[in-house]
Amino acid sequence: MLKPGDWIGILGGGQLARMMVLAAAPLGLKCHIYAPKGDNPAFDVAADFTEAAYDDEAALATFAASVSVVTYEFENIPARTAEILAARVPVFPAPEALQKTQDRWVEKSFIRDLGLSVPEFRAVSSLADLETAVDALGRPSVLKTRRFGYDGKGQAMIGPETDLAEAWARVGEAPSILEGFVPFEKEVSVVAARTATGAFVAYDVCENQHKHHILDKTLLPAQISAETAARAKEAARAIGDALSYIGVFAVEFFIVGAGSNERLLVNEIAPRVHNSGHWTLGGAETSQFEQHIRAVAGWPLGSVRRLGQIEMTNLIGDDVDHWRDLVATPGLYVSLYGKAEARPGRKMGHVTRVIRPDA
Amino acid sequence: MLKPGDWIGILGGGQLARMMVLAAAPLGLKCHIYAPKGDNPAFDVAADFTEAAYDDEAALATFAASVSVVTYEFENIPARTAEILAARVPVFPAPEALQKTQDRWVEKSFIRDLGLSVPEFRAVSSLADLETAVDALGRPSVLKTRRFGYDGKGQAMIGPETDLAEAWARVGEAPSILEGFVPFEKEVSVVAARTATGAFVAYDVCENQHKHHILDKTLLPAQISAETAARAKEAARAIGDALSYIGVFAVEFFIVGAGSNERLLVNEIAPRVHNSGHWTLGGAETSQFEQHIRAVAGWPLGSVRRLGQIEMTNLIGDDVDHWRDLVATPGLYVSLYGKAEARPGRKMGHVTRVIRPDA
Repeated sequence: MLKPGDWIGILGGGQLARMMVLAAAPLGLKCHIYAPKGDNPAFDVAADFTEAAYDDEAALATFAASVSVVTYEFENIPARTAEILAARVPVFPAPEALQKTQDRWVEKSFIRDLGLSVPEFRAVSSLADLETAVDALGRPSVLKTRRFGYDGKGQAMIGPETDLAEAWARVGEAPSILEGFVPFEKEVSVVAARTATGAFVAYDVCENQHKHHILDKTLLPAQISAETAARAKEAARAIGDALSYIGVFAVEFFIVGAGSNERLLVNEIAPRVHNSGHWTLGGAETSQFEQHIRAVAGWPLGSVRRLGQIEMTNLIGDDVDHWRDLVATPGLYVSLYGKAEARPGRKMGHVTRVIRPDA
Repeated sequence: MLKPGDWIGILGGGQLARMMVLAAAPLGLKCHIYAPKGDNPAFDVAADFTEAAYDDEAALATFAASVSVVTYEFENIPARTAEILAARVPVFPAPEALQKTQDRWVEKSFIRDLGLSVPEFRAVSSLADLETAVDALGRPSVLKTRRFGYDGKGQAMIGPETDLAEAWARVGEAPSILEGFVPFEKEVSVVAARTATGAFVAYDVCENQHKHHILDKTLLPAQISAETAARAKEAARAIGDALSYIGVFAVEFFIVGAGSNERLLVNEIAPRVHNSGHWTLGGAETSQFEQHIRAVAGWPLGSVRRLGQIEMTNLIGDDVDHWRDLVATPGLYVSLYGKAEARPGRKMGHVTRVIRPDA
C-alpha cells in the first residue's frame, strides 16, 4: 500500500497520463512520467519525467528505481519494456493481463472461453486464409490486424465488391482476424476498476457514438434495459477477475436486437483508463483517473456514483478552436489536454455536460 | 485574454498555488511558480518553477518575461517585488488592491468608508496609545499588528487582568490596532470572484468554525437569514468594485445578534483564494481555484452552483495521519497538499463531504 508522498511511475506522456497525474496530486501521490521524445503534455503536471525510448534499458532501470509502482496509459507496451520494469518494481496491471489484450485473436478467444458472446471471428495469416474466412463469415465483414490497431487504423471493410487482395494489402499483410459483420443497434461500454484484493466497482453503462472510427460522444444513462446493463457489468467483472486485473479497464460491447431480444457482444477490452470514462471527471463522485491511481496504489476504490445525465463530447482536431464558447458555457466541464498542435483526428480535449437530477 | 497554452506566473509555492495549478491544467493553461527555497508542494505539479528570493531582481525579471500574467497565493507580497513585476507584466489582483488589505488600519478605514460596519478600532503606535485605546474600547479587546498577521499570529487578547505593557511586548511593539470585543454569534465568509470587466460571482455564504485561531470547519448553508446572506454578498461586491479587483477574494464577517437583529460586521478581506472556499473543490460546479485562474486569464467566470450541503474539515498537523480512514470513506473528497512534514498547526490537507439533495 502506497502512502502519501510515494511515487507512481507512468509509461506514456499523453492526455491519459496527464489526467492520472492530476488525479494523483490531491491524494498526495507524486508521478514520474516516462515517455519517448514527442509532444508529452503529461510532463507539464508531473513531479518528474524521463524523456527516453521504451528500449533504453538504462533509463528504464533508473526510472524503476525512482518509483514504488509502475502503470501505463496505453496497452501496447513492448514485452521487453514490461519485463525490465517488472523485474524491479510492481507493474499494474500486470504485463500478463496486457498480453491477453494485445492480440485480437488471443483476446476474443479468451473472452469466448469465459462464456461471453463475441462476434464471429477467424484468424487470417494469408490471402488464402482471408478467402476461406470470407466464405465462412460472408460479406460484409471486417479485417483487423491482430496487434496495435486503434481508432480504426489497421482495419479494412470487406464489402460486396471489395477485392480481397487489396484488403489484405491494406492491413499490410499483417497477421489479422476477420470479424463477422454485427448489425448492432448501439455501442456501449463499461468502465470498471479492480484491486489486488478483488474489490470491484463499475460505473454505469455508457452509450458511445463514433465519427470516422473515433469516439465522438458518450451518453449516460445508456438506452438499454436494466437487465442488459447488469449483464454488461457482470461481464466486466468476469473479465477483470479472469485477468486478476489491477486498475481501471473498459469493456466495449455491441448491443444487438431490441426489447426482450436485446443481447450483448463483447467488442474489445481496453486495459487502461478509457475515453468512454472521461465523463467521470465532473460527472461522477470519483473520476476513472482517481480510481486507477487508487487501485495501483493499493488504496480502497472510490464511489462510482453518477451525478446526473451525462453528455461527454470529444474535441477532435480543430474542434478545440471553439474553446472560447466552451469555457463561456455555464456549468460545462472543460478539459483541454495541453497539446501543442491540433492535427486532424487528434484528441485535443473533451467537454462534459452534467444535467443534475434537481435541475 | 489568455489562450490555451499561455503561461500564468504564481508567486508562492504552497497549497493554494498548488490547487491553482491543478485547476489551470484542464483549461490548457500552464503555470510557472516563483517561490523562495523551502517546502514548495506547488513545484510538483507546475510546468515550470523558479526557486529564488522575493528580492532577487534578476530572477523576478526572468520570471516576468516567461509568463503572460502574474498572480499570487498570499497577500503579503513585498512592495518592491510587486513593483518589479508590474513594470513588466500584468499583475492580478493589482498591487494597489493589495495595499488596502496589507495594513489592518488602512483596511478597516477603507471598509468603513464604503458604509459597511466594522468592529470599533483604534490605531496603536505606542504603549500610551494602547492605554488610551483600551480606555475607549474597554476590555475585553484585541491588539493586532497592522501588518503580516494571520491565523492568530501577531495578536494579543486584552482581558480584564492583562498587563498592557506585556501585551504591547507580545505584538513586538509593532504598529498595531486595538479592536473592540465583538460578542459574535458566528463567523461567516463570502468567497467571490471579479473580472476586469466587472463581472462578479459569489459562492453561497459559508459558516466557519475555528480551533486555536485556525479554520477547523466550513459548513454550508450558513445558518443565517436570507436577508443577511444577501447583504453579505452585496458587501463583497461593493468591496470588489471599490478595489477594481481581479481574481478571487474572501470577505470574513462576524454575525452579531439573532433573528430580526442579525447584523454583519466585516472582520477582514483576504485578497486571494481562501481556506473557507476549499469546499468548492468537489462541492461546487466550479472551484474557487478555477474561478481565480479564469479571472486572471480574462476568461468568463464559471458557475458557482453548490452541489449539496457541505462540511469541509481542515487536516491540521497530524490529523493527516488518518489518511487511510479518510480515503476509505465513500464519497469524501480528499485533498492532500503534498507537504513533506506534518508540523503542529500546519495545514496538511482538507476533506469535503457533500450531502447531495437527492441522497
